[in-house]
Amino acid sequence: MHIVKQLIETALAEDIGSGDITTDNLVPRGKAGTAEIIAKQALILAGLDVAVQVFTTLDPDLEISTHCADGDKLDAGAGILSLAGNLRSLLYGERTALNFLQRLSGIATHVRPYVEAVQAHPVRLVDTRKTTPGWRVLEKYAVRIGGAANHRMGLYDGVLIKDNHIAACGSITTAVTRVRAHTSHLVKTEVEVSTLAEVTEALQAGADVIMLDNMDLDQIRTAVAKINHQAIVEISGNVSLEKLPDLAATGVDIISVGALTHQARSVDISMRISPTVNS
Amino acid sequence: MHIVKQLIETALAEDIGSGDITTDNLVPRGKAGTAEIIAKQALILAGLDVAVQVFTTLDPDLEISTHCADGDKLDAGAGILSLAGNLRSLLYGERTALNFLQRLSGIATHVRPYVEAVQAHPVRLVDTRKTTPGWRVLEKYAVRIGGAANHRMGLYDGVLIKDNHIAACGSITTAVTRVRAHTSHLVKTEVEVSTLAEVTEALQAGADVIMLDNMDLDQIRTAVAKINHQAIVEISGNVSLEKLPDLAATGVDIISVGALTHQARSVDISMRISPTVNS
Amino acid sequence: MHIVKQLIETALAEDIGSGDITTDNLVPRGKAGTAEIIAKQALILAGLDVAVQVFTTLDPDLEISTHCADGDKLDAGAGILSLAGNLRSLLYGERTALNFLQRLSGIATHVRPYVEAVQAHPVRLVDTRKTTPGWRVLEKYAVRIGGAANHRMGLYDGVLIKDNHIAACGSITTAVTRVRAHTSHLVKTEVEVSTLAEVTEALQAGADVIMLDNMDLDQIRTAVAKINHQAIVEISGNVSLEKLPDLAATGVDIISVGALTHQARSVDISMRISPTVNS
Amino acid sequence: MHIVKQLIETALAEDIGSGDITTDNLVPRGKAGTAEIIAKQALILAGLDVAVQVFTTLDPDLEISTHCADGDKLDAGAGILSLAGNLRSLLYGERTALNFLQRLSGIATHVRPYVEAVQAHPVRLVDTRKTTPGWRVLEKYAVRIGGAANHRMGLYDGVLIKDNHIAACGSITTAVTRVRAHTSHLVKTEVEVSTLAEVTEALQAGADVIMLDNMDLDQIRTAVAKINHQAIVEISGNVSLEKLPDLAATGVDIISVGALTHQARSVDISMRISPTVNS
Amino acid sequence: MHIVKQLIETALAEDIGSGDITTDNLVPRGKAGTAEIIAKQALILAGLDVAVQVFTTLDPDLEISTHCADGDKLDAGAGILSLAGNLRSLLYGERTALNFLQRLSGIATHVRPYVEAVQAHPVRLVDTRKTTPGWRVLEKYAVRIGGAANHRMGLYDGVLIKDNHIAACGSITTAVTRVRAHTSHLVKTEVEVSTLAEVTEALQAGADVIMLDNMDLDQIRTAVAKINHQAIVEISGNVSLEKLPDLAATGVDIISVGALTHQARSVDISMRISPTVNS
Amino acid sequence: MHIVKQLIETALAEDIGSGDITTDNLVPRGKAGTAEIIAKQALILAGLDVAVQVFTTLDPDLEISTHCADGDKLDAGAGILSLAGNLRSLLYGERTALNFLQRLSGIATHVRPYVEAVQAHPVRLVDTRKTTPGWRVLEKYAVRIGGAANHRMGLYDGVLIKDNHIAACGSITTAVTRVRAHTSHLVKTEVEVSTLAEVTEALQAGADVIMLDNMDLDQIRTAVAKINHQAIVEISGNVSLEKLPDLAATGVDIISVGALTHQARSVDISMRISPTVNS
Repeated sequence: MHIVKQLIETALAEDIGSGDITTDNLVPRGKAGTAEIIAKQALILAGLDVAVQVFTTLDPDLEISTHCADGDKLDAGAGILSLAGNLRSLLYGERTALNFLQRLSGIATHVRPYVEAVQAHPVRLVDTRKTTPGWRVLEKYAVRIGGAANHRMGLYDGVLIKDNHIAACGSITTAVTRVRAHTSHLVKTEVEVSTLAEVTEALQAGADVIMLDNMDLDQIRTAVAKINHQAIVEISGNVSLEKLPDLAATGVDIISVGALTHQARSVDISMRISPTVNS
Repeated sequence: MHIVKQLIETALAEDIGSGDITTDNLVPRGKAGTAEIIAKQALILAGLDVAVQVFTTLDPDLEISTHCADGDKLDAGAGILSLAGNLRSLLYGERTALNFLQRLSGIATHVRPYVEAVQAHPVRLVDTRKTTPGWRVLEKYAVRIGGAANHRMGLYDGVLIKDNHIAACGSITTAVTRVRAHTSHLVKTEVEVSTLAEVTEALQAGADVIMLDNMDLDQIRTAVAKINHQAIVEISGNVSLEKLPDLAATGVDIISVGALTHQARSVDISMRISPTVNS
Repeated sequence: MHIVKQLIETALAEDIGSGDITTDNLVPRGKAGTAEIIAKQALILAGLDVAVQVFTTLDPDLEISTHCADGDKLDAGAGILSLAGNLRSLLYGERTALNFLQRLSGIATHVRPYVEAVQAHPVRLVDTRKTTPGWRVLEKYAVRIGGAANHRMGLYDGVLIKDNHIAACGSITTAVTRVRAHTSHLVKTEVEVSTLAEVTEALQAGADVIMLDNMDLDQIRTAVAKINHQAIVEISGNVSLEKLPDLAATGVDIISVGALTHQARSVDISMRISPTVNS
Repeated sequence: MHIVKQLIETALAEDIGSGDITTDNLVPRGKAGTAEIIAKQALILAGLDVAVQVFTTLDPDLEISTHCADGDKLDAGAGILSLAGNLRSLLYGERTALNFLQRLSGIATHVRPYVEAVQAHPVRLVDTRKTTPGWRVLEKYAVRIGGAANHRMGLYDGVLIKDNHIAACGSITTAVTRVRAHTSHLVKTEVEVSTLAEVTEALQAGADVIMLDNMDLDQIRTAVAKINHQAIVEISGNVSLEKLPDLAATGVDIISVGALTHQARSVDISMRISPTVNS
Repeated sequence: MHIVKQLIETALAEDIGSGDITTDNLVPRGKAGTAEIIAKQALILAGLDVAVQVFTTLDPDLEISTHCADGDKLDAGAGILSLAGNLRSLLYGERTALNFLQRLSGIATHVRPYVEAVQAHPVRLVDTRKTTPGWRVLEKYAVRIGGAANHRMGLYDGVLIKDNHIAACGSITTAVTRVRAHTSHLVKTEVEVSTLAEVTEALQAGADVIMLDNMDLDQIRTAVAKINHQAIVEISGNVSLEKLPDLAATGVDIISVGALTHQARSVDISMRISPTVNS
Repeated sequence: MHIVKQLIETALAEDIGSGDITTDNLVPRGKAGTAEIIAKQALILAGLDVAVQVFTTLDPDLEISTHCADGDKLDAGAGILSLAGNLRSLLYGERTALNFLQRLSGIATHVRPYVEAVQAHPVRLVDTRKTTPGWRVLEKYAVRIGGAANHRMGLYDGVLIKDNHIAACGSITTAVTRVRAHTSHLVKTEVEVSTLAEVTEALQAGADVIMLDNMDLDQIRTAVAKINHQAIVEISGNVSLEKLPDLAATGVDIISVGALTHQARSVDISMRISPTVNS
């Protein structure tokens, strides 16, 4: 994908800049080497293709073989990727490739327990737009690898009518009617509500999805009953891992969790490089 | 800075893409509004300028006033930024500005306890190159706001001779001599060592900085004594917040901690938008 | 929008290149002038903001006033835009601004009769992805100005399952089920069918939208009856202006017409420039 | 050419954006397929290289064979291009490749009758700068494929002195003299005139090319006689296909026709894709 | 011009990179200052606008006043530009602005004696395409400021048929005829020849310009007599300042000199910065 | 390196623009040829990789063999590079490749005598930031090839405290202390001084490098004695080739010379192209 290619080039430029002054002065130009990328902790792998692309961007002649696939659950010590070729290329790409792998696998690993917490219920766990600027496509990919699903990619591919939109239009009904008239027939209309009265209005206005914002368990149950499968029900706002099982049991269809992306931390992955003797 | 400007444009393009289909269809073009950005938890603020730049990139006519400065310790509820102007512009920029603020303040807030853990000793805490690709300048800035310092920015502005460089050259002595001959006289030469024998060789070769990689406390103390202020001593590798006070007490000059950036999580910051009545 | 800004810069670079060798050698640097952009034929105006942006990109100091708005039906001779300021800037931007206005107004003007041809029926006329590469956002905007609506923007914001996707999955049912599991809950699933048996399968699989591809009027009527408002019905394929009223009368919900964009031609708009005397 | 490469990348980004949500969810990653691009109407082909480049940009491993060349007159049903390889790549590139081919072949096909209308006379038919912003190099290429020639590419590679330039200089004579002194000796100087008096002045000033703007047939014949091969004679302005034979018979050297590009419409070209069984 | 804007941004990025670590740590953010740019040797000034643009790119709020214009002959000590405003901005832009001014003024200053060496004859001195990659528009501008003229800008805006083109076509006649048929009627056709027989063939083929490559004075005089004003005569190849008067006296129209750009050296220009007291 | 790749693409776009109108019209598309790049004067070669990259950017299928390496001292007539393949590609790349080679070899050749002038002393000759905007990485590379060394690359990779920084801080001592606290421990701190009192203060403040600005020989000797190897001593300012031996004999460690880059001129290198007969 074009977006990822540009981010990789930005990342390499940011690390290498005007030149790797250590390697360029110490490692002979033609020197060969090999490398292994290894999980240093248990993790769900994500970002393998990106790591490969970091190295092929630097040097299309490297030989690269992969030992697992995105979504695999790896134990500490598991091999991820083997590389062979120009030693300078291996050293140039090391940190950037690891930085991608560590963050993306960090998200996938972080998402998995959330998914397991709701698996007893027919509910879909989704992310939000709370992603690292410049990284949205990658982070949403890692969320899917972790087992959850994606909410809209951005403001361009889904309608979500919030309080300010409603205020600017006068009413939920006007807002739903107007947005329907102007958006593609392939797009559903979601309305964010915070009271049961608004639930009723959104339902009557024909909203396809109703998002219950920051409601407590009782309110949610009442809303689910009132909506009665006439619209998809989503809950959002301050959802923690602890509360997830109870929330999932209310019968909602979708739970969106910003923490899937913005509370994830990098996992530990390292790269062992060996110069080839007498190359 | 040019790098930050490009990242902001990428982030806005990523979120808005071919257009905000909700806002563009519901909020009249000339409608005015105001907004407040507010801390939802205690935090160390970082990224205020970036957040302002997100909005001015979208709309140079917004009126923006700031209520605090990067580095300030804010309580939950504290106001950060007030905006007034075109309501569409406020809605377009909301998520992107918050995503920057939340991540950068998250790093600054995360760094602070590490800094406090070593403040009894004359040691400098520094970050590493384990940063989010595309974000290095910003993340290293947030580290400084949090009270720590920066190791090199990239491969281009500091020499760090590691095992592979040494292997490619034959010896520490050859490596140090060769790199000195070819790099700027403004750059110091650092050598990563893992045994006391290597400490001795690096010292004799004239290394300006010696990095003790993954040594235990006893080894570190012995190395510090041997080096005896003839070179700067840095320790690195699996440094945790718990171990920091003991490590700082060994008399080393520098402790580098990858966790400063890659274990940070976003803090909670939100934006309240109000359409102006009858605008 | 970022996309439009880039296209304007590309267009100016393409026309001006290494410099306007006529103007730069003949028109003194500080010379002032005025200009009027005028419709030379009856047309529906589209692209006014883009034309303004062409000139402000070249010279932020130009004074610009507009005399009408996108969507207005103009007679031949109607004034569109007045400009005053640096004469060189007016000459540099003339052709590029007109090229944008002529093509976008050409589309809006071309679309209008199609819209009128179906206005007796509750059907929505939409465009396709048959747009000029690099121009999609602009051309789809001009379609809306002309009175029609947009199908999906690209492959990223709508699901349209075609024969090859079905073949790759094994059946319509599998395809619909699988795509639902992996796409956002804000996105509807459309299936393209060419037989009544496929209509039945798509309906049972739960397709939100069924596209009848190249069916004749009788087949369409039968399909509409069978679907009976359980899914949105779209028709597509070789739709001409002449056939539109009959197609609209079949009771379908959506008619997509590639000709809205790819059969449009530019309309005639010109710019009269006058150097200011003694400036 | 660099310009075309950039337009192809923009076009693919515009269509694929954050990902093809239908194909990515339904077509297995390694699945193979074949495709044929076919003329659906009689046409003059233009843009074959661009279509090939769209697919090689997406996937350098596709096998591509061409069955004809730009400039060929094809009947409806004629095969243009065969492709084999990754099915996802074929689906990603389909619409963008066709959009290029349809528009460029549309121009070449549109130009041909204009060329035939003047072929009895030693006159050269040329295009203008009325091209789709961002597409000039491609559209002017399609004009040549259609059998006509190009006027200048932009403001940088030819001098054309118009009324405003003359007004800014004081007289045709001053303008011609001044521009000659400052432009490359490889560039001819053209002057646009609208009266016979101006023809005389342009001739005496030493204009290499005289453009008669919007003159009627009698005026043109008089001007041609007066110029008497001392300068190249071009006519311009509201030239229609019907008037072309009479205009060509006046003895002018060049006829420029904006309609060659801005009145062209896309021709019908389609792509048939087949998944490979059991790939 | 777009090209220059991009070069300025590249240059600033190249100098400032991830940040000016001296200034950012020592000069307070709001500190004010003034600066003067001064000629340190006699020179012909070129590049004033570029220098101004360097500073306005960094900081649109700087106050800038110019004391002379491009083309002015300055004595050592003459003031060129005064600036006032943010001290950091002055320090960031200093080196880049000077580097532009020194090189462009260096070219203008270098060109002037060449121009004076031929001023007794009606001959035009022109540059070549031997320019610093990335700098062509600027260097050719400096050549004009120095008093000489430009040959073609690049391969796109002038025809120059050399030996390899002739070999690929079979003869000068074929080459001239073919290129005429396909290029714009605003472009002249130049042929490079090295023998008198080729001069004759080029003349008969209708070349507009004949370039005599590396001929001696006698050959040039013979060629000029033979051409007898039926084509423009250009000489090229190893033209030195010493030989110029004799070459100009042969009656040729154009002398192209690669040394105008590639033998120029920077002139000495400096910037004095003063922090404002108590700002 | 990314920076060089971009400069090559800019340079090719600048020369070829909308197309090589001579070659495209005269040289058949598939025609083959060979070429030799040859030194036309004695020179130190620099830029071989860049020249190769110009051609591989245009056409990855060219066969290229090199006959020497950067740093080699070539006699007039020596072969540098042989190329074989598509004749159009050879013609497109010729001028751009030569422009790179001529300038970079020009710098290397210019630097060599400066290096030889100081070789009797243990002093290091370094360049400055007086480089052609956009070319810094390349020009500093050519300086190294010529035998000298590099000062800092830009404002981002070395601290150099000048008078304005000192004025903004109050004293040398404050400036050195403050910059030390905030910059990486891998970076040395250099202070520019112009009096012996300042030498003393800089030394006491702990400056790693002291730059003596524009001092005469006696002052330099006194300063060197006073500093007595407690800091690195650099001299700078109006250093000419003639004065170099005396300056080197003073015992300073570093001499920085702006003339290494900004007084260099291109050397003469040419390319002989031969079309392959009957290709």
